[in-house]
Amino acid sequence: MKSLTEYLVFDTERRFEFINITPEVDELVQKSGVREGLCLVNAMHITASVFINDDEKGLHGDFEDWLEELAPHDPISRYRHNRTGEDNGDAHLKRMIMGREVVVAITKGRLDFGPWEQIFYGEFDGRRRKRVLVKIIGE
Amino acid sequence: MKSLTEYLVFDTERRFEFINITPEVDELVQKSGVREGLCLVNAMHITASVFINDDEKGLHGDFEDWLEELAPHDPISRYRHNRTGEDNGDAHLKRMIMGREVVVAITKGRLDFGPWEQIFYGEFDGRRRKRVLVKIIGE
Amino acid sequence: MKSLTEYLVFDTERRFEFINITPEVDELVQKSGVREGLCLVNAMHITASVFINDDEKGLHGDFEDWLEELAPHDPISRYRHNRTGEDNGDAHLKRMIMGREVVVAITKGRLDFGPWEQIFYGEFDGRRRKRVLVKIIGE
Repeated sequence: MKSLTEYLVFDTERRFEFINITPEVDELVQKSGVREGLCLVNAMHITASVFINDDEKGLHGDFEDWLEELAPHDPISRYRHNRTGEDNGDAHLKRMIMGREVVVAITKGRLDFGPWEQIFYGEFDGRRRKRVLVKIIGE
Repeated sequence: MKSLTEYLVFDTERRFEFINITPEVDELVQKSGVREGLCLVNAMHITASVFINDDEKGLHGDFEDWLEELAPHDPISRYRHNRTGEDNGDAHLKRMIMGREVVVAITKGRLDFGPWEQIFYGEFDGRRRKRVLVKIIGE
Repeated sequence: MKSLTEYLVFDTERRFEFINITPEVDELVQKSGVREGLCLVNAMHITASVFINDDEKGLHGDFEDWLEELAPHDPISRYRHNRTGEDNGDAHLKRMIMGREVVVAITKGRLDFGPWEQIFYGEFDGRRRKRVLVKIIGE
């Protein structure tokens, strides 16, 4: 069994941001030499997500509006978590909707994707250094 | 390490539909010859889900009502994504609630399930050909 | 390839409860002898979750309020599923938000976690015996 472990680092300018990380993950799959296996990609922080959806700006705006509706950032006092001095209670909730991780099949040495699948890093409490883990296992 | 890769194809009659795919996945696990391992089952399209829950018609109706409440299909103009000419903005959101994939343990050659666990394909923008990937790895 | 399969058992006092299961999972990783691999942890019941987030009591209260808002327990008659004699329709929905499973990387023999990641069992219909599956594969 082969395996590869890598950490991607992000430090976004905005609190809320989506970044397409498919090219980086694809490159790591090729670097791993794995032909048949699984690729786990997960946020290592609990106010961020890794998810798969479409790379379309309008849709990303829809996601932002929708998450803000389901778990508003304001008022800060809305969340008991913010009594600890944080202001990111909403980000912990948003991340549950969008998910922590994706597991992608590797087939014949490539990410085995449908026509529109793209992997995104979803940041809900940015402007600080955060990491994403890529773990590949297989043969 | 053994592995198996198969694609299931769906073309639903309705826009919104749930299909129990447990028998198909179970058969593939047996075909793979894997006794101990992992089975990934994921939607390959970004307006569909694979999820695990109960095979109970009332509950499926509850899911449909609830998803429609959280991410209504109408009005189409509600979603920026629909300005691209699509009418499936809601389906992209619904799929985030229900999830893209499940990873199921294989133990002694079988899906290692609790008493009520069943795998479903969840379609939110049907009436077109779509695929689900089943990837099995193990020994 | 090595593998390990274990079942954790829970019987909560309250209907709604979060339990930090990180120490138990960590111990199983060490027991498995796997140095590089994947660890799947999933609820075996469809009204419960396994998820990763922060071990902070205020946040857990926020999760409870928020899930109650998104999928209220009462009135029982709100859910068609409850016509079967159950009163846990809401729990099936809450579990979809929080997720069934997590997949965690194992690196150098340990759960490869960010600074605040902790694994929780999320119970939404407790006061009965339920199980969580831990499946570890790797080398």
